[in-house]
Amino acid sequence: MAPARPSHPHREIAWWGWGDPDRARSLPEGLNGLLRDALGVRDGRPAPASLEALQLTPVRLPAPAREALTAIVGPGHARADQEARVRHLAGKSTIDLLRLRRAGVLTAPDLVVTPASHEEVLALLSECAARRVAVVPFGGGTSVVGGLRAEAAKLAGTVALDVGRLDALVDLDEESRLAVLEPGLRGPEAEALLGARGYTLGHFPQSWEYATLGGFAAARSSGQASAGYGRFDERVLALRLATPAGTLTTGRAPRSAAGPDLRQLVLGSEGTLGVITELTVAVDPAPAARVYEGWRLPSFPTGAAVLRRLAQDGPPATVLRLSDEAETALGLARPGALGADPAGGGCLAIIGWEGRPEDVEARRAATAAVVRAAGGEPVPGAGEGWAEGRYSAPYLRDALLDAGALVETLETATFWSRVPGLYAAVSAALRNSLTEQGSPPAILCHISHVYAAGASLYFTVACAQLPDPVAQWRRAKAAVGDAILGAGGSITHHHGVGSDHREHYAREVGPLGMEALRAVKRSLDPEGILNPGILLT
Amino acid sequence: MAPARPSHPHREIAWWGWGDPDRARSLPEGLNGLLRDALGVRDGRPAPASLEALQLTPVRLPAPAREALTAIVGPGHARADQEARVRHLAGKSTIDLLRLRRAGVLTAPDLVVTPASHEEVLALLSECAARRVAVVPFGGGTSVVGGLRAEAAKLAGTVALDVGRLDALVDLDEESRLAVLEPGLRGPEAEALLGARGYTLGHFPQSWEYATLGGFAAARSSGQASAGYGRFDERVLALRLATPAGTLTTGRAPRSAAGPDLRQLVLGSEGTLGVITELTVAVDPAPAARVYEGWRLPSFPTGAAVLRRLAQDGPPATVLRLSDEAETALGLARPGALGADPAGGGCLAIIGWEGRPEDVEARRAATAAVVRAAGGEPVPGAGEGWAEGRYSAPYLRDALLDAGALVETLETATFWSRVPGLYAAVSAALRNSLTEQGSPPAILCHISHVYAAGASLYFTVACAQLPDPVAQWRRAKAAVGDAILGAGGSITHHHGVGSDHREHYAREVGPLGMEALRAVKRSLDPEGILNPGILLT
Repeated sequence: MAPARPSHPHREIAWWGWGDPDRARSLPEGLNGLLRDALGVRDGRPAPASLEALQLTPVRLPAPAREALTAIVGPGHARADQEARVRHLAGKSTIDLLRLRRAGVLTAPDLVVTPASHEEVLALLSECAARRVAVVPFGGGTSVVGGLRAEAAKLAGTVALDVGRLDALVDLDEESRLAVLEPGLRGPEAEALLGARGYTLGHFPQSWEYATLGGFAAARSSGQASAGYGRFDERVLALRLATPAGTLTTGRAPRSAAGPDLRQLVLGSEGTLGVITELTVAVDPAPAARVYEGWRLPSFPTGAAVLRRLAQDGPPATVLRLSDEAETALGLARPGALGADPAGGGCLAIIGWEGRPEDVEARRAATAAVVRAAGGEPVPGAGEGWAEGRYSAPYLRDALLDAGALVETLETATFWSRVPGLYAAVSAALRNSLTEQGSPPAILCHISHVYAAGASLYFTVACAQLPDPVAQWRRAKAAVGDAILGAGGSITHHHGVGSDHREHYAREVGPLGMEALRAVKRSLDPEGILNPGILLT
Repeated sequence: MAPARPSHPHREIAWWGWGDPDRARSLPEGLNGLLRDALGVRDGRPAPASLEALQLTPVRLPAPAREALTAIVGPGHARADQEARVRHLAGKSTIDLLRLRRAGVLTAPDLVVTPASHEEVLALLSECAARRVAVVPFGGGTSVVGGLRAEAAKLAGTVALDVGRLDALVDLDEESRLAVLEPGLRGPEAEALLGARGYTLGHFPQSWEYATLGGFAAARSSGQASAGYGRFDERVLALRLATPAGTLTTGRAPRSAAGPDLRQLVLGSEGTLGVITELTVAVDPAPAARVYEGWRLPSFPTGAAVLRRLAQDGPPATVLRLSDEAETALGLARPGALGADPAGGGCLAIIGWEGRPEDVEARRAATAAVVRAAGGEPVPGAGEGWAEGRYSAPYLRDALLDAGALVETLETATFWSRVPGLYAAVSAALRNSLTEQGSPPAILCHISHVYAAGASLYFTVACAQLPDPVAQWRRAKAAVGDAILGAGGSITHHHGVGSDHREHYAREVGPLGMEALRAVKRSLDPEGILNPGILLT
């Protein structure tokens, strides 16, 4: 087939917050009172009005380096203007957004390059390695773990390498159900190109509207339909990686016994080993039917047992999630109706099925029997409500930050037998740290992804912003990291490590594992130009 | 729980061939004529009669090293006698068995140590690193790719590190469906310990009777029920690795976004990075029902399309395999009835289901409709026959070698769209190389493991032994390796790399991938004592 590309230019994400800048956002009425009365949120801190007014670090990149890099991609594709630098200086974590809201100089890349081919990426990496210039690979810019805040003080400058022009559906192998895709495609663009051929990636994380396939792979993303389609990293069967030392290609079969699986070394490498320039990903026929239902379970442990039963013994579901009592009471599973509890107590589970209509109906009916037997009751409209609002929660955060609340999410995972202990430990760490700092929080949680052997826990925290909200959140987050490691969890299930989780990641992996990863990095990136300070210490 | 161990000592495998030494083996009558008439097999080369008569390389290990290593494990657990050395000098490839049959000196380890704990393994590795002594980790000794023929000429001696005393079921987490197991457990021993608690590993490779869990993990084994239970490497969720540089533990959740998956670096490392001393593996409830059926499909492509359909769209099966016309005609799917074609032409598929009786019956019935629609006809008794003989094929090889035939198996995998090309390329390479050498072969093949995106091809080759059968097979195997890489396949799907596939593996992985793996090895095994010459060049 001839490569196919998106029919429209990439939509630009709001530089000052999440998502479509034209989409109006305001807080649901019920929430305003809650913020004021329960959390003591008082002083608003609205987002900056103008991009031009932001103060950025001066450009450090020597002119000869800039000229050499510009020569590789062409003058229209190497930018150093204020807008390009602002749009590539950070991701979308709450810390990233808070930094934009406070006075001060923001560290920004010196140059933004947008290569059009694997060969151009190789040439850029080679040039930057020779000149000891840091390279920050950039996809959708949606990292929520500081994945774009590389630390390049020891190098001769920083270049953001934006893969946005690598955005083709290169090939579709219908027999093997594999698509060859480029990393700069955003979620909806890839779905549109594949949908025109009758296929889906089945990958729908909350960042789907703006995140890119390269980022999904590099940061091991997991989508809301992971119970059915699996994680993104499980669907990547071949990769091409451009590194300062050359090209690494891996993946000749679904599975192989030919040594360690090098795909699994690239997946999760977060731009520290190279730039993914092509991915071969499993695709599924687009489902003819999609049904999502809400169920109220008597308690979080009861609901967790139902999800575990479904993950271990079926019937198989496509979407499985369970809000705890607090999240259910606030209605966060349906951001459009926030503040109104749709379930009337207990814990709201969202269970969805996608596929052929007769299969969907059979699985739905069999699942209903399982859930009812555990004391579950249907919550009419809750499934559809969840589906409608599934990408909306991040929009709310901007309005909450405007109002003076500190709000952020974090996630972890472990084996089932450790889930209750992990839930308790993270909740206590958040509550204790934020309360001690004088900002008692609201803590909401849901089980966001399930496996036969375990599950992930996804927490949302809200409290009043203190005078230094960045330090406030860093302190709480450090306490949570300690709690996660102490309870046997992983420091991240699907957000990645970035710079925020680096210290706890090193403890999770241990000194020998870190030394092995550093050894790999030295072999592919001998000058250490790729994402310094990200992932690896 | 208290650790549980096998109730009987490990059964010893025949030192001169495959399997239970007391099990009589002879060739089915139909096969003798076939060997003589079709392949020109004439001169028998029986296995050596006595272990004591074998000539081994002189012991090189300096006495102080021997004493230091013996002090770690205790005098009863460090052996240098003829039997211990012979039993640890090679695996069970045809080349290994042919070498035992010809006159000459066999390279054997100087000392066989059997540590009883992770700490003893660490101490042994540390001592061997300090003294630059090669260490060959040893599980069941069933490698068929030269995985035990390390090349230690540049080191001060060779120690076989037999993990046979690390053989406990350490823990069973029924909620998470995870078992913590030690690497020296053999397939039946692990199944017995888990079966007593109502669980199964679901891992049944042809080597199951003698191979160990450590080997399953280190060489990425895949079992006959992989369609249902997955590969062994997919079921390993945590690992503890003893290395010369210390202990590496990995795996805190089923899946994580915390960087590259280090489990996938240990899996497939074939003893070159360390010794696996503990594995946490997914277990399933022991199935109440097991049903295996045989179906005759009109052709190999038609049958492959049926398997692909079942892997991609279900109904899900536990066992899926398909013999080509030649293998079907010979009846190799049922080694007990070899030489008699049970299917009357076409291609024999074996399809099996395990689980709850009602589920098994529903999947069986739905599958029958799919297979019939593709022109399939049931072959009564073929499923049961396959199940009865599923571990028997390797026993036949000894009788064939005795009779003067050269017989060996090899396997590869790729994506579905490349399967026909891979099948043709491997068949042609085998036929051309062996015919040109003067020993026209019989070539049989089956699809042994299927995935949504692809499948593995498992070939069995038989021809007359030439005067130097080792060189004869090496020449054919090199041609096959070239053909596999040229057709886009992986050099191995589940046998591993060992020393036999090393050169083609390096080509498959490419220079950058190899450099990354060597870098990891240098960080965990700085002296290069672990399995020199295996996997990595």
